[in-house]
Amino acid sequence: MKFSMHAMSVDVFANALGNLSWVLEKAAASAAQRKFDPAVLLAARLAPDMLPLTRQVQIASDIAKNSVARLAVQDPPRLENTETTIEQLRARLARAIDYLRSIPASALEGAETRDIKVPTGERTLEFKGLEFLQRWAIPNVFFHVVTAYDILRHNGVELGKADFLRGGRDP
Amino acid sequence: MKFSMHAMSVDVFANALGNLSWVLEKAAASAAQRKFDPAVLLAARLAPDMLPLTRQVQIASDIAKNSVARLAVQDPPRLENTETTIEQLRARLARAIDYLRSIPASALEGAETRDIKVPTGERTLEFKGLEFLQRWAIPNVFFHVVTAYDILRHNGVELGKADFLRGGRDP
Repeated sequence: MKFSMHAMSVDVFANALGNLSWVLEKAAASAAQRKFDPAVLLAARLAPDMLPLTRQVQIASDIAKNSVARLAVQDPPRLENTETTIEQLRARLARAIDYLRSIPASALEGAETRDIKVPTGERTLEFKGLEFLQRWAIPNVFFHVVTAYDILRHNGVELGKADFLRGGRDP
Repeated sequence: MKFSMHAMSVDVFANALGNLSWVLEKAAASAAQRKFDPAVLLAARLAPDMLPLTRQVQIASDIAKNSVARLAVQDPPRLENTETTIEQLRARLARAIDYLRSIPASALEGAETRDIKVPTGERTLEFKGLEFLQRWAIPNVFFHVVTAYDILRHNGVELGKADFLRGGRDP
């Protein structure tokens, strides 16, 4: 595989979302084994004013697909936020990964110098594509993926960093 | 700035560690304002069998500096794990960032195809440089940086994602 914007966005994000799906599979098994409704985990938060697990997974997938779409100058598919089960969240992650994988390396050639605008509540952030990937997209996707892991870990799901990294294996 | 292995490792990690230092500064202010010993935060964990904040910060800085050193075929400076205050942890992050910034882009040219071996407890993982960065170094650094943030957030430090990303600004 060649070092490219594609390798550092599509591959990094597809891997992270795939590993998150694996972590959610372990969460479902943990709830079944400990005999409680997995919806308890989906509503769990690390602080009252932090988002619950469901939203962490939804946002992780959105930022991954929307960031790559911005870099590739595409309109990303819209995913409705209607998931109420772990299975549905894993299906959402699979859809996001399918979208990421559908973007050819050619669509991201030269993306490092593209102008990227990110409207936020207060102001519009402006980046070149490289900075956007370095300082916005990658930290942002991992922010939500790791927080999802931390919510589950805090709630007693038996996980370790090896589940998060999966030894660098294919998701 | 040019898209390069250097941009995707040194810059990404220096930015992440710099933002973690900012988050720790806010943690110190929060402890002062709420009138408790900041050492309480340093010992805080999200689960009894997870590492406390101090170790998350130490490991984040170690993985960042050691990963770039592996890619650059250098011996990284060793940092002793002796920090007992937020100030000392921030000094450690500053040292790790200084080391990262000392590595010239030329040292990472062609690093994407280098053979990287990572001895773990059970087995030695083998990667090409690109995969090592994508699937090991980047997820691993963010694993510890975000978990540090999550520990603080869980303990009532007033933080938001904007503190974690800092709008893509320079650390």
